[in-house]
Amino acid sequence: MALFNAERPRDAGHPGTPPKVLIIGCGFAGLAAARKLRSAPVELTVLDRTNHHLFQPLLYQVATAGLAGPDISAPIRHLLRRQPNATTLLGEAVSIDPSRREVQLADGKRLAYDHLVLAAGSTHSYFGHDDWAEFAPGLKTLHDAYEIRRRIVAAFESAEKEDNDLERQAWLNFVVIGGGPTGVEMAGTLAEIARRTLPGEFRRIDPASSRVMLIEGGPALLSAMPRELSQSAQRQLADLGVEVHTSVRVTRVDAEGVELSFPDGAVQHIRSQCVIWAAGVSAVPLGTQLARATGLQTDRGGRLQVLPDLSLPGHPEISVIGDLAFARSQLRGHADRDVPGVAPAAKQMGELAARNILRRLASQPAQAFRYRDQGTLATIGRNSAVVDLRTPLGRVKFSGRPAWLFWVFAHVWFLIGFRNRITVLSEWSWAYWTNQRYARVVSDIEADTALRSPVASQSSTVQL
Amino acid sequence: MALFNAERPRDAGHPGTPPKVLIIGCGFAGLAAARKLRSAPVELTVLDRTNHHLFQPLLYQVATAGLAGPDISAPIRHLLRRQPNATTLLGEAVSIDPSRREVQLADGKRLAYDHLVLAAGSTHSYFGHDDWAEFAPGLKTLHDAYEIRRRIVAAFESAEKEDNDLERQAWLNFVVIGGGPTGVEMAGTLAEIARRTLPGEFRRIDPASSRVMLIEGGPALLSAMPRELSQSAQRQLADLGVEVHTSVRVTRVDAEGVELSFPDGAVQHIRSQCVIWAAGVSAVPLGTQLARATGLQTDRGGRLQVLPDLSLPGHPEISVIGDLAFARSQLRGHADRDVPGVAPAAKQMGELAARNILRRLASQPAQAFRYRDQGTLATIGRNSAVVDLRTPLGRVKFSGRPAWLFWVFAHVWFLIGFRNRITVLSEWSWAYWTNQRYARVVSDIEADTALRSPVASQSSTVQL
Repeated sequence: MALFNAERPRDAGHPGTPPKVLIIGCGFAGLAAARKLRSAPVELTVLDRTNHHLFQPLLYQVATAGLAGPDISAPIRHLLRRQPNATTLLGEAVSIDPSRREVQLADGKRLAYDHLVLAAGSTHSYFGHDDWAEFAPGLKTLHDAYEIRRRIVAAFESAEKEDNDLERQAWLNFVVIGGGPTGVEMAGTLAEIARRTLPGEFRRIDPASSRVMLIEGGPALLSAMPRELSQSAQRQLADLGVEVHTSVRVTRVDAEGVELSFPDGAVQHIRSQCVIWAAGVSAVPLGTQLARATGLQTDRGGRLQVLPDLSLPGHPEISVIGDLAFARSQLRGHADRDVPGVAPAAKQMGELAARNILRRLASQPAQAFRYRDQGTLATIGRNSAVVDLRTPLGRVKFSGRPAWLFWVFAHVWFLIGFRNRITVLSEWSWAYWTNQRYARVVSDIEADTALRSPVASQSSTVQL
Repeated sequence: MALFNAERPRDAGHPGTPPKVLIIGCGFAGLAAARKLRSAPVELTVLDRTNHHLFQPLLYQVATAGLAGPDISAPIRHLLRRQPNATTLLGEAVSIDPSRREVQLADGKRLAYDHLVLAAGSTHSYFGHDDWAEFAPGLKTLHDAYEIRRRIVAAFESAEKEDNDLERQAWLNFVVIGGGPTGVEMAGTLAEIARRTLPGEFRRIDPASSRVMLIEGGPALLSAMPRELSQSAQRQLADLGVEVHTSVRVTRVDAEGVELSFPDGAVQHIRSQCVIWAAGVSAVPLGTQLARATGLQTDRGGRLQVLPDLSLPGHPEISVIGDLAFARSQLRGHADRDVPGVAPAAKQMGELAARNILRRLASQPAQAFRYRDQGTLATIGRNSAVVDLRTPLGRVKFSGRPAWLFWVFAHVWFLIGFRNRITVLSEWSWAYWTNQRYARVVSDIEADTALRSPVASQSSTVQL
């Protein structure tokens, strides 16, 4: 099949033919790169597997029915509509040919590039247990969020219909695997749903009798945070009624539930039809393919090791950014440190990759990446959060209600570019005062099949 | 399997055991009946196939990405939470046994009743061509709306990727079959999307070159409306760029598009991957089953003919209301007329069915149904609508911008009971000023498969 974006100029510097820049993936990293190239004399193509950019830090709110999907996402081509040099394409890159400077799409089309910005992100990692995926969905896409929402709703509905006491409790067991920010947010919100949102709506069960378990393999929750905040998070979760288990390994996940291995050697089996995987991420397969094609190595998580300027060794025309990059940043006055897989880092990488393309076009040397760490924050529930802020004046740590207010402010602020900032604020104000969650609506619980046979319905979802 | 709601009192009047009222279906009719029984001394069970009540008049806005699903729906058990006599159950009734007064669910459970209110609604009718369903989805559920939204988004995305001119135009053909209110709303909104929302966002296609066709078999659109309003609607649609074809029959729908038969005998084939069925509705199969079990007849549309008090002949303990009922209403000073399948009629039927149950419990005679026709209204697009109002002072007809403002006011007003009235107003104000549609986000266009093979992806959706 012919090249989709016509013949590329053999000589990228040929006058009159702007160089082709291809960005694969339009998450925080890819979008930042695209926006930075707004007025650049390049022919920009932005390729994504979905039609929308997603504000991922709020995805757990979609999964727990606090927000609708469109509240936290916007069509990519809408975000780039005022950027005449940018073409948005919906499609999936399956392989990169660095020698021909071409990308192959799943539909057979090929895209040429002079500069490639690879920002294809990460996916769930089940640490070699891919068969766990259907029983414990992760949370990366809107599709994931809707599936988790469906399971949460189906669990309470099924419990209400269940005659057998043991079976009923099994429906009311919720297990969140992984004690990072997503796991903490999911567990805290599930506990709030059970204790604050649903009571009064059921006649045969007491939703507050639900068990919400948060399982972390390491010794502490939120391991990237200072010890005191991690401990505070654990206390705040306990106050909400979440059972937190640290240093506990998950040894099996199946249609019945999960098997846990405790540090004292004890093994416990927890029945649950609603298990959520927030434990591991791994770079997308496209990274592995590119590593093979370039003879470079990936780290254990499948990420590509990049040079300080975020380009691939031997391939200055390829930048790898976001969760797919294993980058190190020199900190002023500190030793080098790994760049964490968080949204601000992704945005900063995207901006630098774009700047380096512009510098290369101007025959200037590329710059090295310096991560400006502004700190981290995680929310737990209403009035519960932890914040570890790095300001020019030093580090500020706080938790509880002030941290939660700061979290709300920061997240609504960063919904910039989405039209729904006011809507989200109004949703949240309402949710705060009423404890309600307006998106507790699922479209595809088709009568009883979803309830009786979660496994069967899961696999049909996977087919889709 | 044992009766789910325990043994029913053999003698419904037995002191201390409140009579069991079962409502099947919680649309406008079922919800109105349930609410009317709020303080009644009955044991009420509300059964629905989904977990939510849907504000169906705005469903086309979800399909056309103007609103998110949760904006127009609310969990049934949330709506009934302050009604202690009501139990909400998620499940599908597959058959009714009037002699045992029991309902069988798809999961094998059985529900006993002393009074049954059947409000299970209608589904799409393809007039004997059920194989058309996968190529031309109808619009009844949130699931339908998401599927139509997916096809609309996929059509424009695919056109942008298409190299072949003929194929590209095929992607940009949209066919709406049926010129009732839903068809008029869908066609008008599609034209607005093509001409006002999307321009500027694509680089290889001009969305405004889309063809939107509205096909009506009868001689006029909105046949329930006065002739002048029907003609006004047709003019307003033409102004938006919709091609309206009346007296045209659809003779085939397949993976390629539709075949149209014109009154002059001409046959035309229109290629389209986005065909929307707004032509026919038919009562749900549960109605046919009940007709067979009671020896009663249904009309051509599968509706059950009810007595003036909305009960089934020979079964005063069964009321049939909403789209499933073929009811006639005596109008003050007029001949009897058929009750139309619209939301206000469904609500009024629900209220009367509940009132008649209370009257039977008090040993009073049941009342006959009198439909209070408040008129009809249909929207076409921004500033375009037609209104035919029946007031105590007489009939008022108007169209254009005043009609549109009236429509907005009426619809937002009737979103009572949903928390999202303010949100919907803010969405609409925003959409009005910007021509944007915030929910243009689809979760399950999984890369290219959905684009290349709409048929295959449709059938997997149907499996779900």
